[in-house]
Amino acid sequence: MSEFPLVIAIDAGGTEIKAGLVKGKEVLATQRWATEREGGPDHARDQILFAAGEMARRHPDAKAIGLVVPGVVDSHNGIAVYSENLKWENVPFRKIINEMTGLPVGFGHDVRAGGIAENNFGAGIGFSNTLFLPIGTGIAGAITIDGVMNEDVFSGEIGHMDVGSGYPCECGSCDCLESISTGPSIARIYREKSGKPIANSAEVVKAANSGDVIAIQVWRNSMLALAKAVYAYVTVLAPDVIIFGGGVSKAGKELLDPIQSYLDSKITFQRHPHLTIAQLGDTAGIIGAGIIASRSL
Amino acid sequence: MSEFPLVIAIDAGGTEIKAGLVKGKEVLATQRWATEREGGPDHARDQILFAAGEMARRHPDAKAIGLVVPGVVDSHNGIAVYSENLKWENVPFRKIINEMTGLPVGFGHDVRAGGIAENNFGAGIGFSNTLFLPIGTGIAGAITIDGVMNEDVFSGEIGHMDVGSGYPCECGSCDCLESISTGPSIARIYREKSGKPIANSAEVVKAANSGDVIAIQVWRNSMLALAKAVYAYVTVLAPDVIIFGGGVSKAGKELLDPIQSYLDSKITFQRHPHLTIAQLGDTAGIIGAGIIASRSL
Repeated sequence: MSEFPLVIAIDAGGTEIKAGLVKGKEVLATQRWATEREGGPDHARDQILFAAGEMARRHPDAKAIGLVVPGVVDSHNGIAVYSENLKWENVPFRKIINEMTGLPVGFGHDVRAGGIAENNFGAGIGFSNTLFLPIGTGIAGAITIDGVMNEDVFSGEIGHMDVGSGYPCECGSCDCLESISTGPSIARIYREKSGKPIANSAEVVKAANSGDVIAIQVWRNSMLALAKAVYAYVTVLAPDVIIFGGGVSKAGKELLDPIQSYLDSKITFQRHPHLTIAQLGDTAGIIGAGIIASRSL
Repeated sequence: MSEFPLVIAIDAGGTEIKAGLVKGKEVLATQRWATEREGGPDHARDQILFAAGEMARRHPDAKAIGLVVPGVVDSHNGIAVYSENLKWENVPFRKIINEMTGLPVGFGHDVRAGGIAENNFGAGIGFSNTLFLPIGTGIAGAITIDGVMNEDVFSGEIGHMDVGSGYPCECGSCDCLESISTGPSIARIYREKSGKPIANSAEVVKAANSGDVIAIQVWRNSMLALAKAVYAYVTVLAPDVIIFGGGVSKAGKELLDPIQSYLDSKITFQRHPHLTIAQLGDTAGIIGAGIIASRSL
């Protein structure tokens, strides 16, 4: 993999800052820091800057730094515009980290970085129209059209498509996909309907597989909502492949089969997208940050 | 408008072939021929070739020809791949017309040509993310992202988004937007519910405006379905502007207001698109064909 430079990659989330030394899809050294967002936006920012500084100090042979963060991201100007999760506003990360380390800095959005990674090294290889759709605590898509990642800050908000869920959404609206198909939503709905304590969507899948009728219905409804949103996407952009990621996608076949079945019943003349599970797992963000770092060179 | 070359532009539809001499947004001479699709796909093709030949003969000062057609269009290779309406398959229009006339030939899709025209000379001026959505006998969108028109043959099929209409669709599926919000659908539903003969959606709007309760409900439901589809598009691509065209858009404020109201009730953090009516009317296709002709030079 000599064509890939050695770079520092940082994937900063609401809970954790994952950093690594990256060469192509190879993650050579990883380090994690807590974001400590409870300390406020300035503290979270400082934690990220500390991580960047530490990585640069420990790895003087790295040629660039790539940082990806959640929320509204201005990748062109290297600014974290806003994050509901981290509460910061207009943090010029690229400029600060460049001045601090003297290294070229690539800056981007965490979900889109995951999409860039899957496109280059994972399930998106060989396709030019892809949707990378991680389903975790939220649902947002990274859209690639003719090989180009859409970097619009408001695009890909598939989690807020109206799927008629009947539930309120944290965004302030109701009926959004996120209110029924995220990991926490699936667990919450199961708890409400069954009265049984359950921690996450994986336990709902497990219960469904052992014949729990409520679990079967809750999972089916969440997958139907997801399928409806995916079908709406298909009518608009006709992707070659849809790559499901995030915690909920660990259900694998239990996720792919109902969506495939729904699409088969809906699509008449349109292109049938290939449905698949992301291949890079939790490291997609960091590998994507590495690609973004390489592009800054 | 000396920067625009004089070109022949042809917008061939299922009923009519509209041709003109075009210079920028100026349509200098127009001529119409019947497509006579009842004569079969070869005849329809020959009618178009005849029109192209005639226009070239009459206007020897034209520098290029632009032709746009409906259906599945391979604009890159200049081939009309398929049309449900015209039944042809793989007609290499660009090659044939170039050999016949000796002129450079631009070839494209009729709806996307309308979008190109609105982007350049109409309601899309100044915006880089636009959706041109003509609503006539069908509903299909021309998608522009970062100033680039999406030319995927299966993209923009918003008319087949599932809006839960409860009606079968001509595509073979059901619940599609086209089954409730096209001109013929609106008239059909009104006729079914009222038992009154009515020819088109404009008459439904007129009846609604004079207090006909069934007309009010039919129009409201068709606009609600349209608004739902538009909102799904907004979550995916966050356009700056949505430009409604086609016969149904002649309702103007009666179309814009309910969609605006729905979006206002749904959008929380996302970008609010500007909603507007197309400015070029029936000539959008021909002006777009002219732009496509210019690009072949």
